[in-house]
Amino acid sequence: MAQNIYDQPEFFDGYGQLARSTGGLNSAPEWPVLRAMLPPMKGRRIVDLGCGYGWFCRWAQTQGAAHVLGLDLSEKMLARARELSQADAVIYERADLEQLALPPAAFDLAYSSLALHYLEDAGRLFATVYRALVPGGQFVFSTEHPVFMAPSRQGWAKDADGRRIWPLDHYAVEGPRVTDWLAKGVVKYHRTLATTLNLLIGAGFVIDRVEEFAPTPQQIQEQPALQEELDRPMFLLVSVTKGN
Amino acid sequence: MAQNIYDQPEFFDGYGQLARSTGGLNSAPEWPVLRAMLPPMKGRRIVDLGCGYGWFCRWAQTQGAAHVLGLDLSEKMLARARELSQADAVIYERADLEQLALPPAAFDLAYSSLALHYLEDAGRLFATVYRALVPGGQFVFSTEHPVFMAPSRQGWAKDADGRRIWPLDHYAVEGPRVTDWLAKGVVKYHRTLATTLNLLIGAGFVIDRVEEFAPTPQQIQEQPALQEELDRPMFLLVSVTKGN
Repeated sequence: MAQNIYDQPEFFDGYGQLARSTGGLNSAPEWPVLRAMLPPMKGRRIVDLGCGYGWFCRWAQTQGAAHVLGLDLSEKMLARARELSQADAVIYERADLEQLALPPAAFDLAYSSLALHYLEDAGRLFATVYRALVPGGQFVFSTEHPVFMAPSRQGWAKDADGRRIWPLDHYAVEGPRVTDWLAKGVVKYHRTLATTLNLLIGAGFVIDRVEEFAPTPQQIQEQPALQEELDRPMFLLVSVTKGN
Repeated sequence: MAQNIYDQPEFFDGYGQLARSTGGLNSAPEWPVLRAMLPPMKGRRIVDLGCGYGWFCRWAQTQGAAHVLGLDLSEKMLARARELSQADAVIYERADLEQLALPPAAFDLAYSSLALHYLEDAGRLFATVYRALVPGGQFVFSTEHPVFMAPSRQGWAKDADGRRIWPLDHYAVEGPRVTDWLAKGVVKYHRTLATTLNLLIGAGFVIDRVEEFAPTPQQIQEQPALQEELDRPMFLLVSVTKGN
């Protein structure tokens, strides 16, 4: 079972103060890129894997989705999502993505934002999602980029000339990475980019698009702290299709 | 036109002393991974983009390829390739991959080893290769990994604890990288991994497999210097297919 870090009070409180928690989709700098990878929502049956506060579910509903199923491991996140939601088209359910079962060919779109790096076995989930999609269905997700996840010590460093660098090591060594982000002992699972893509291909998916999020000049102007995101990719965004 | 660095005496002499130059395919640690991505050679019409000394061309010929065309920008490399070759099935020609023209649907396999990072415009070449392949044809290549290419200063560094790290920066900043590898002022072109994959998809290819070369435990035992390759990927290997 995946670690339920979001239900730890320290983590939940910290997470609730992030811009992306209070401000929703438009506060996430990678959202415009992710949104551009999505099909039109109108009439779609959608599952959101790791829905958190339900920002995406509500957005999809306002865009005319036929049905949205938001899944999350955290009771606290789901409770908050239900408070914020008034739409009949959105249903929230508790689910562990490591052990997920979904009905076959029931969805047009599977979506996941920054949840897959908590899973030890992404291949199992990819196979589950593949079966749950209709032919031609799409799976669009973001995850922490493996270059961001890999290092022994995740954090900017300086080289001998005082230049900001990302101290990459252990890239090829896959497995757990324990960080102290918002709370102590948060466990995430590092996979190389190649592994993620090959698992998707192995599940039957066709790769449509891969993005390594980098801020636009306008984003950097509005939010100068984003400049450092040019130095190493933090988010990996992928769109794949189940062939007809 | 791509920089013809291989014909500079200093570079050519230095290159000629590398293990992969004198020992051929089996001296390249990534060869077993690349080989596993290749289809059987028997009866195939093959083009090798950046054939160098022709190691791959000769190997393909011994495996029963019907026809092998080796292309390179370097006159010196081609001269050496022709000296080493006695097979009628291999033809060597001078070509600039930046301006390459190939006959349509003339090849079953396009292959390229560590040449594409010299090209400013990979998209043009991908489109050329796509047209030159028969339906179902495959394109298998290796290139320097963008994580290896990106940094302002390519080379291992130490963090505050004395741990070996790869000082990544400027990953999202695509364009030329000038290094002093074997000769001064060698120009290579950095593209993100996402850009390379999206250019291939845009050209019409289906992504079959992506590998970020990492040595096996046995390779590290035989050649301990390879240990550092676990810390950051040096080579990107890709296999794509032209759909039927």
